[in-house]
Amino acid sequence: MIQFPEESKMYEERGFAARVGFGENPALLIIDFIKGFTDTECPLGSNLDVQVENTAKLLRIFREKSLPVHFTTTAYDPEMISAGIFVKKVPSLAHLKLGSKWVEIDERLKPQNGEVVWIKHYASAFFGTSLSSALLAKRIDTLLITGCTTSGCVRASAVDACQHGFRTMVVRDCVGDRSNYAHEANLFDLNAKYADVVSLEEAIEYLSKLSK
Amino acid sequence: MIQFPEESKMYEERGFAARVGFGENPALLIIDFIKGFTDTECPLGSNLDVQVENTAKLLRIFREKSLPVHFTTTAYDPEMISAGIFVKKVPSLAHLKLGSKWVEIDERLKPQNGEVVWIKHYASAFFGTSLSSALLAKRIDTLLITGCTTSGCVRASAVDACQHGFRTMVVRDCVGDRSNYAHEANLFDLNAKYADVVSLEEAIEYLSKLSK
Amino acid sequence: MIQFPEESKMYEERGFAARVGFGENPALLIIDFIKGFTDTECPLGSNLDVQVENTAKLLRIFREKSLPVHFTTTAYDPEMISAGIFVKKVPSLAHLKLGSKWVEIDERLKPQNGEVVWIKHYASAFFGTSLSSALLAKRIDTLLITGCTTSGCVRASAVDACQHGFRTMVVRDCVGDRSNYAHEANLFDLNAKYADVVSLEEAIEYLSKLSK
Amino acid sequence: MIQFPEESKMYEERGFAARVGFGENPALLIIDFIKGFTDTECPLGSNLDVQVENTAKLLRIFREKSLPVHFTTTAYDPEMISAGIFVKKVPSLAHLKLGSKWVEIDERLKPQNGEVVWIKHYASAFFGTSLSSALLAKRIDTLLITGCTTSGCVRASAVDACQHGFRTMVVRDCVGDRSNYAHEANLFDLNAKYADVVSLEEAIEYLSKLSK
Repeated sequence: MIQFPEESKMYEERGFAARVGFGENPALLIIDFIKGFTDTECPLGSNLDVQVENTAKLLRIFREKSLPVHFTTTAYDPEMISAGIFVKKVPSLAHLKLGSKWVEIDERLKPQNGEVVWIKHYASAFFGTSLSSALLAKRIDTLLITGCTTSGCVRASAVDACQHGFRTMVVRDCVGDRSNYAHEANLFDLNAKYADVVSLEEAIEYLSKLSK
Repeated sequence: MIQFPEESKMYEERGFAARVGFGENPALLIIDFIKGFTDTECPLGSNLDVQVENTAKLLRIFREKSLPVHFTTTAYDPEMISAGIFVKKVPSLAHLKLGSKWVEIDERLKPQNGEVVWIKHYASAFFGTSLSSALLAKRIDTLLITGCTTSGCVRASAVDACQHGFRTMVVRDCVGDRSNYAHEANLFDLNAKYADVVSLEEAIEYLSKLSK
Repeated sequence: MIQFPEESKMYEERGFAARVGFGENPALLIIDFIKGFTDTECPLGSNLDVQVENTAKLLRIFREKSLPVHFTTTAYDPEMISAGIFVKKVPSLAHLKLGSKWVEIDERLKPQNGEVVWIKHYASAFFGTSLSSALLAKRIDTLLITGCTTSGCVRASAVDACQHGFRTMVVRDCVGDRSNYAHEANLFDLNAKYADVVSLEEAIEYLSKLSK
Repeated sequence: MIQFPEESKMYEERGFAARVGFGENPALLIIDFIKGFTDTECPLGSNLDVQVENTAKLLRIFREKSLPVHFTTTAYDPEMISAGIFVKKVPSLAHLKLGSKWVEIDERLKPQNGEVVWIKHYASAFFGTSLSSALLAKRIDTLLITGCTTSGCVRASAVDACQHGFRTMVVRDCVGDRSNYAHEANLFDLNAKYADVVSLEEAIEYLSKLSK
């Protein structure tokens, strides 16, 4: 775990990085744990076995408690029109076509009935989806975020979760990146400004104490 | 065609209902001409044959000129979680499940390669989709809107098209509603405040003069 | 009160126009009761005294109970750049400049400390504002909507309130329009598809029964 | 300038970090160069003199060529209701009240007539504003982004600019951060996934070649 002691001190002195705290009504948001990202055979993939397995632990608890679970995938039309300008920057997004195996959720986390898989086209799970509306309609106030990559879709989704008004919890042990360095740098930024970065242990403890 | 002479006069005197005018770079937006709405066997359906056939004429021109075409459908997960609070108001939305034939585009307008079908969950084609981003990335400035229903998804989409910054053209002969009265009342509001309501003839003439 | 018996019957038979019902945590949303709309000296204005006074009654109850109140105004920069394409359709929006008296909230409803006045540029109170985020952060689930005009900003805001996931209550006696006909036609559409249209009496009764 | 050679190589091999390229119709977007951030007397401030002066150079060219300029500020109501959940994470946002000197644009970049100052409440210049609509209505396709902080509002705005469909150019010499490390790490992520990170020199050269 890389640390940034100088920046940490600076942020604390200036009134950043407070603790938002968990709320009363959580949902689990699993960002882009799709085969294209968790299978190293895809050019976009990397080994995220530990993070997937940690997410599976959290998922089990959400299911046991009948708490809501939301997944995202990134998937495009054949001509990549739905990828807008993004595909000009990241041409390899073209691997993520609707119907391809790469856009399916990792088997170890296979969605069940009652769990929505949101198809998104950009980094944020909230951009161009109605995820926020579905959460609001169920009065969710807290999101536990897992998935990949920390420096890409997880970061963008966590920033947007805060912007939309949710208590945003990024579960450190359940999010991963192609670069360990980018992973740590982004967790640091997120914890300073948008989200509480929590351990899997803390997340489990919170869930165990929920009345329902 | 129902008219509202008193309101028309009032709006003109007060600086409403000006003409926006067509731009340089149009796209066709076909709202929810899905089997559930165009087939009278579905409780949500009504006879919109004329409007579908008029839309087919416009679609042919867009294809001949290789101009962009976008479709929308409304389709939900099995548990209707993606329908948020909307399904409480309109319980019959539950007919529109992903995988059902009702959410497929009407055969007479069958989408071709290069034409995107956007899945939406609410009335507006822009709400919870990234349609606007895809249009912006292609520098579209003008939307010709067809589809159904005039008082529902067409109205909401046309208001949002204006809000997003597009020259919004609602093609009168290509939009329909379960109620003729609601159709006319909504076209009137749209033309006063958000969109130019144009005839199919005007739309065809515009397209014939486009340089490309 | 104009009625639409044929359409009412049709909507009921087809599974529209159900009752959403009030929730637990309401906010009052007062749309564009600004001097430019409630003072007949402004070309955009009309006599909405009854609706303003009815809204004042509701406002008094919200304040007594320390429940949240949100206002909107529509106001633009001097060059109308923030009005986007909208000002091409409605040139008289140019009366609504930041700093002008027309964009101030009607004196009879003067905002108090703790009540936010959201500046919007389009019809919907949600479009281009972060109103939804502020409501979500306070766990609001129900919006009581008042203001003007029924066929313009009230309709667009109510559609968007539903799209964002709120139980949307349009208070019939507290919303008004330049045209009585447009008022009724839009209330009818709203009640069929997006919102519960309720009387002032119903709204007051609901508030009186709230535990807090 | 910190470099990340290993990550750079990895991204290139995997089809990230392509060059989007400048378009035809640029606007300048100056993010949060407000006194609260550029004056070290404010707890939120840091010394960004070089970046402000570099931005002033770019601003002069945009003005000479009558190209559009947009500013953002972050400013809240007295009770911080418009700050949603964000203020729980960053309590020092409470320094940024509407009417306070801290939320005014830095004098060295003083906005002129025809330049809009967008009031935002969150990190992204696009979130809860109608900036995108105003740009789209003018057919802007390219944003040159300057401002602060690189790891906060600049990053969030650049990600959103890409998501909205703009060619997003972050001008390295015109964006700054409280931490040099965070500055570089975020420029690296942005260039890999969302934006072209360009030098002031490149930006100036592009503008000099624009036909208008």
